[in-house]
Amino acid sequence: MSENIVNSSKLKIIPLGGLEEIGMNITAFEYGDSIIVVDCGLSFPADDMLGIDLVIPDVSYLKDNYEKIKGFIITHGHEDHIGALPYVLKEIPAPIYATRLTMGIIEHKLSEHNLLGNIRRKVISFGQYITLNDFRIEFIKTNHSIVDAAALAIYSPAGTIVHTGDFKVDYTPVFGDAIDLQRFAELGKKGVLALMCDSTNAERPGFTASEKTLGPTFDNIFEEHKDTRIIIATFASNVDRVQQIINSAYKFGRKVVVEGRSMVNIIDTATKLDCLQIPENTLINTEQLKNYPDEKTVIITTGSQGESMAALSRMASSTHRKISIGPSDTVIFSSHPIPGNEKAVTKVINELLRKGADVIFQDTHVSGHACQEEIKLIYNLVQPKYAIPIHGEYKHLKAQAKLAQSLGVPKENIFLLRSGDVLELDEEAAEVTGKVPVGNIMVDGLGVGDVGNIVLRDRQHLAENGIMIVVLALEKGSNQLMAGPEIISRGFVYVRESDELMDEAQQVVYGAVEKCLDKGISDWGRIKNCIRDELADFIWKRTKRSPMIMPIIMEI
Amino acid sequence: MSENIVNSSKLKIIPLGGLEEIGMNITAFEYGDSIIVVDCGLSFPADDMLGIDLVIPDVSYLKDNYEKIKGFIITHGHEDHIGALPYVLKEIPAPIYATRLTMGIIEHKLSEHNLLGNIRRKVISFGQYITLNDFRIEFIKTNHSIVDAAALAIYSPAGTIVHTGDFKVDYTPVFGDAIDLQRFAELGKKGVLALMCDSTNAERPGFTASEKTLGPTFDNIFEEHKDTRIIIATFASNVDRVQQIINSAYKFGRKVVVEGRSMVNIIDTATKLDCLQIPENTLINTEQLKNYPDEKTVIITTGSQGESMAALSRMASSTHRKISIGPSDTVIFSSHPIPGNEKAVTKVINELLRKGADVIFQDTHVSGHACQEEIKLIYNLVQPKYAIPIHGEYKHLKAQAKLAQSLGVPKENIFLLRSGDVLELDEEAAEVTGKVPVGNIMVDGLGVGDVGNIVLRDRQHLAENGIMIVVLALEKGSNQLMAGPEIISRGFVYVRESDELMDEAQQVVYGAVEKCLDKGISDWGRIKNCIRDELADFIWKRTKRSPMIMPIIMEI
Repeated sequence: MSENIVNSSKLKIIPLGGLEEIGMNITAFEYGDSIIVVDCGLSFPADDMLGIDLVIPDVSYLKDNYEKIKGFIITHGHEDHIGALPYVLKEIPAPIYATRLTMGIIEHKLSEHNLLGNIRRKVISFGQYITLNDFRIEFIKTNHSIVDAAALAIYSPAGTIVHTGDFKVDYTPVFGDAIDLQRFAELGKKGVLALMCDSTNAERPGFTASEKTLGPTFDNIFEEHKDTRIIIATFASNVDRVQQIINSAYKFGRKVVVEGRSMVNIIDTATKLDCLQIPENTLINTEQLKNYPDEKTVIITTGSQGESMAALSRMASSTHRKISIGPSDTVIFSSHPIPGNEKAVTKVINELLRKGADVIFQDTHVSGHACQEEIKLIYNLVQPKYAIPIHGEYKHLKAQAKLAQSLGVPKENIFLLRSGDVLELDEEAAEVTGKVPVGNIMVDGLGVGDVGNIVLRDRQHLAENGIMIVVLALEKGSNQLMAGPEIISRGFVYVRESDELMDEAQQVVYGAVEKCLDKGISDWGRIKNCIRDELADFIWKRTKRSPMIMPIIMEI
Repeated sequence: MSENIVNSSKLKIIPLGGLEEIGMNITAFEYGDSIIVVDCGLSFPADDMLGIDLVIPDVSYLKDNYEKIKGFIITHGHEDHIGALPYVLKEIPAPIYATRLTMGIIEHKLSEHNLLGNIRRKVISFGQYITLNDFRIEFIKTNHSIVDAAALAIYSPAGTIVHTGDFKVDYTPVFGDAIDLQRFAELGKKGVLALMCDSTNAERPGFTASEKTLGPTFDNIFEEHKDTRIIIATFASNVDRVQQIINSAYKFGRKVVVEGRSMVNIIDTATKLDCLQIPENTLINTEQLKNYPDEKTVIITTGSQGESMAALSRMASSTHRKISIGPSDTVIFSSHPIPGNEKAVTKVINELLRKGADVIFQDTHVSGHACQEEIKLIYNLVQPKYAIPIHGEYKHLKAQAKLAQSLGVPKENIFLLRSGDVLELDEEAAEVTGKVPVGNIMVDGLGVGDVGNIVLRDRQHLAENGIMIVVLALEKGSNQLMAGPEIISRGFVYVRESDELMDEAQQVVYGAVEKCLDKGISDWGRIKNCIRDELADFIWKRTKRSPMIMPIIMEI
């Protein structure tokens, strides 16, 4: 019992994801008998996760502490913060707390998963508090590349934590108010135990420019391309960017078409919630495009990252059913390629140029995340005892740690956590006291978690080398060879080009089987191993390749 | 006969690769009965070429015109200009002409392929001519990220072509002379039919900085990190960069270790040919590292692009047998990630930081290729009638075309060729008159070209969805089911997690077979199709996945 009492005086912060290359954000805050969960994101698969659609966090720890969980607090509506909700809520149907647009996007997602009726939801305004047992949580207005992003002040008996969510400082946002820096200052004045601050741009010096600085650049582009159709690719979730494109379109008397499923969804949600203002008679649908001359239309589309199935890629490769690209098109990429997407983006650009389109890269260093000076500003206002950099790979966390140190936070008060670390803290001390199980759960089609490392390793092997299947039939009891061996390959070599090789391979297998049977080996496992070894050896010597070899023995 | 005479007055330029995303450089120049081939490069596989080691050009056109081929003229020693030589020379053993270091690197490659004895080779000096039937070729000194790079003046009866190879203008190169701009001017004065100019950096304004500007930055790094070991990752082929690192190491009294097979090879070749000066007692081997304190050593290594098998990646992931990374290491990346490699580089950086190393990105915009102002300079000096941008993807060629036009080359005199295009030209006219077969030949292990699109498509399918193999045995004649159906899967789902699914799948197959046999269908092709269709349907409904389904019927 005494141990319990000791523990309950400390707050536990447990990131369950989001601090590695695979960036799904989810953090548990635990005090006594209460747990609140901040964000619940998914990640897109790493290059070596073959055939995987998306990745969600392993929440075993939450399932094991089911009865303690008081709710999910969501900072904003991006996939890496909300995407795992439909999967996690199926097992932990706790209530959700979020701001208006964030909740709108979540609700769309839940309705797609038929979960809307089962989950309690509460829309929270900025400045409003919610109390969940030992925790009180306040939502604080910030700016980000999506409207209604919030930072959180999490009050616990052990002290106050400020969690910035994803943020930037935008004094002149396109929609709504600037970040509530006064509130950060007030909290700092009262005393903040720990600051958990966005690290994404911690390597970049200076300030992130205001989203609004792009307004005039859109006007310029429209001014300079009065004679062509304009196609603008950007992130579906960047509602403010879309607003500015619509403003310019309206100013220049162009009709706007929206292309790409995720873009249509989010614009729909944002419009309904008045987070996006579209002048009447501005939006038209794709079918209506033909009623207007090219120079009187704008297409806002997904695909700025070269995603092969997105609308822009389909236009570029002439597989879009309704829109084709030609010399009377100006295509604007209004977002920089995310590392890893450069080649895909370049491929789309080359295809667009070949079709005669003009391609422009809007040279925007407008990001949704705080650069070094903004991070320093938040540290200065909040003056935390402990610094816990979040939202980034190790190199980003490390960069923020350096900043924090330069601002006077002692090195031993800065924690570079890894997913699963249990950080226990109060005014007296803070230390990592344990580790809970965490990991990547891969979603493939309808299967959640049924593709694990063994399956992935097999896929990798198949992808690089193909497969050779060896089938033979043995008589029950006598173990006499009744049929085969037959060899069939896929993904290895084109068979017609290698008849001779396959004939020889068959002889090798035949020899291996005969040898086993002559020796009186009747254990099929041993016969299969023998086939596998001898065939692999032969194929490697002849081709320097290692296809997966799969012997199958049938009993007749 | 008359047609022959007409043709022979024109020069044909036929790029056989290098103008697409897959950048293996090789161009045929044909006049009358003579063909010369400029460069013969390989390419590294695109992301969707699963399991492929490297890609070489389809040279069917050269094989079909075997007797016309007078030689291979090589501009410099990079893989995308020399890498396919060992493969192509096996079929077309024509002589090779190249400058000294270029030939040294080629010879190393040929000896690895046991070809050194069979191929005539001639080392050419700058300013020297060679005459090959109707062609005369002059090698002109240029600068690039490897020593001994050459531009070519190709004289034919139809006129003179200037081919820049890969080049930059470096007035203060680390080794050897600056580019011979006077010769370009002289050629221009005499009249140049066409300029084939490097497009790699045609989108970048300004000038590329001199390689020598990096010398002081290395000195600074050595000055600032006097207490740690220094590890510098760069391209193996950048001999000048290596020279500057060695200079700084020597100045600061450090011993130098070279790590990575390709790095060792090229430093060896360059040293033998006096293209690299290493002061005595500076180079040590890895085993000797332990005899010196960390702060007295430098390791120059491969792996600056995050290549998973390169020395630096192995050090970072603790799989290098001799060198391990710790807090007393400063790691310098002395080259920017090539588009597509960003994620791999970041992964290595995160691993290095986690081990406590300091990681520095040398902020170098020093490239081996000419930027816009240098390209303009060459156009100004050469004043060609026709412009044929080379070495780049479509967007780069297009950018150079824009530059050429801005300098007064008429649009109709600029040719954006695709691989395989036959451009016929002389003083009177130039036009694309035909197309020869070109393509990517994939090398996988020892197999050259035996992996084609069908095999790759199968690999893609296997990679994303795995395979389900269905085996059954039918009695000869009666077509009675003697054994099976058995279902085995790989890369689909982890079997223990899906016993029930597999049981049901077996029932589906059993049903499909029974149905066929009941209907008296005896054609195995039809039975297999029936199994494939019904099983695919069942699996899709249950999992939303599409594994490759492979029915195998044995005859007993």
